[in-house]
Amino acid sequence: MADTFALLEESVDKAVYVKLKGGKEVRGVLKSFDQHLNIILQDAEELRRDSEPRKLGRILIRGDNVVIVSPAE
Amino acid sequence: MADTFALLEESVDKAVYVKLKGGKEVRGVLKSFDQHLNIILQDAEELRRDSEPRKLGRILIRGDNVVIVSPAE
Amino acid sequence: MADTFALLEESVDKAVYVKLKGGKEVRGVLKSFDQHLNIILQDAEELRRDSEPRKLGRILIRGDNVVIVSPAE
Amino acid sequence: MADTFALLEESVDKAVYVKLKGGKEVRGVLKSFDQHLNIILQDAEELRRDSEPRKLGRILIRGDNVVIVSPAE
Amino acid sequence: MADTFALLEESVDKAVYVKLKGGKEVRGVLKSFDQHLNIILQDAEELRRDSEPRKLGRILIRGDNVVIVSPAE
Amino acid sequence: MADTFALLEESVDKAVYVKLKGGKEVRGVLKSFDQHLNIILQDAEELRRDSEPRKLGRILIRGDNVVIVSPAE
Amino acid sequence: MADTFALLEESVDKAVYVKLKGGKEVRGVLKSFDQHLNIILQDAEELRRDSEPRKLGRILIRGDNVVIVSPAE
Repeated sequence: MADTFALLEESVDKAVYVKLKGGKEVRGVLKSFDQHLNIILQDAEELRRDSEPRKLGRILIRGDNVVIVSPAE
Repeated sequence: MADTFALLEESVDKAVYVKLKGGKEVRGVLKSFDQHLNIILQDAEELRRDSEPRKLGRILIRGDNVVIVSPAE
Repeated sequence: MADTFALLEESVDKAVYVKLKGGKEVRGVLKSFDQHLNIILQDAEELRRDSEPRKLGRILIRGDNVVIVSPAE
Repeated sequence: MADTFALLEESVDKAVYVKLKGGKEVRGVLKSFDQHLNIILQDAEELRRDSEPRKLGRILIRGDNVVIVSPAE
Repeated sequence: MADTFALLEESVDKAVYVKLKGGKEVRGVLKSFDQHLNIILQDAEELRRDSEPRKLGRILIRGDNVVIVSPAE
Repeated sequence: MADTFALLEESVDKAVYVKLKGGKEVRGVLKSFDQHLNIILQDAEELRRDSEPRKLGRILIRGDNVVIVSPAE
Repeated sequence: MADTFALLEESVDKAVYVKLKGGKEVRGVLKSFDQHLNIILQDAEELRRDSEPRKLGRILIRGDNVVIVSPAE
């Protein structure tokens, strides 16, 4: 059985999607994370249903807002 | 009395359904989990009422969003 | 004064009702539980107001979603 | 200054009202409780505004759902 | 700088108002409290906007529901 | 880098605004606080959009309701 | 892999955006933060969709309200 955070460890410096509580979704390059799922993304942008992604730059996401993280494979 | 996580241990590498707070439901192959119910699924897809499942690939679900996990028996 | 979990201990292998936050209610045979009220049910089904129960099979309920557990006496 | 749980200790084997988050209210005989306010009631029933109380029998209430407990004096 | 709970300690056996999450407000004589703000009130009543206060008698309020406590000075 | 609570320490005995979850805002003289952001205000009043402030007197605010605290400079 | 709080450490004394639960967004100069993401901003203002930013001055944000922090690069 693989480690729960293995998916994140192998995604460092790669693009990931992060779904947040309340329905927002952001995409960016994973730079760092910790066991609370606090996450640092670079070149992040918020995906929006009816318009262009909104540039967010570098962001820190507080872990308790995270629902799903997935590599942008 | 069986152990609470026994159901997950025997489901590793098998398909499971995960119901999330807010009503979303995802299906995928269970690769890993921990005592917070942080879960890694492979070949995950989000089940949707009126359309085809949406492919999510490999995902990490933060445990506090989980309501129910069940093997896709 | 009886122990708080005594009601669950004596319900193992018997049918119980579990009310969840948000109003859902499931029924099944209690196989396991822990101090967080993580619960494993067998032959579980979701009770629905206007239709037949929906079969869920074996399920793990994350404890923080539980409101009330009661034996189906 | 009396102990915070004294009110519950002296209510064991007596009828109590329990108000839950979301507005539900149940009444029953207090059999057990712990420091999280997990509560076991016997002969419990859910009080309903426009209809007869609904019989629940013996129930375990998960403490984090509790708002107010009061003896049915 | 006074202690955070000093306001409650000097209010024991006196009337206080307690505002709860969700907007309810109760008034009663403070008999006991602890560091989680679990509170015991005597002669409690629920204040209602368009009608007479509703008698609650002795009540235990679970601390996580409390927003504001203030002496009825 | 200054200490996170320095802003509160230097505001003791001075007027502060406290925004609460749910949108309420209160103003008062800060008398005490702790690391959970439990806060005691004196001469507190609730600010209201379309009417005069409502006098609350001395209040204890449970910390988990606090969103923002700022000196009334 | 960089440390999760590195983004904040290098932003001290610089302008940051802070998105809060519920949708509010504030901008200000980061003066301090701790591991709970309690944050002190100077010259803070609340950004509003249809009107001028609202001046807040110095503020302490309780960490559990924070969704995203990003440098105003």
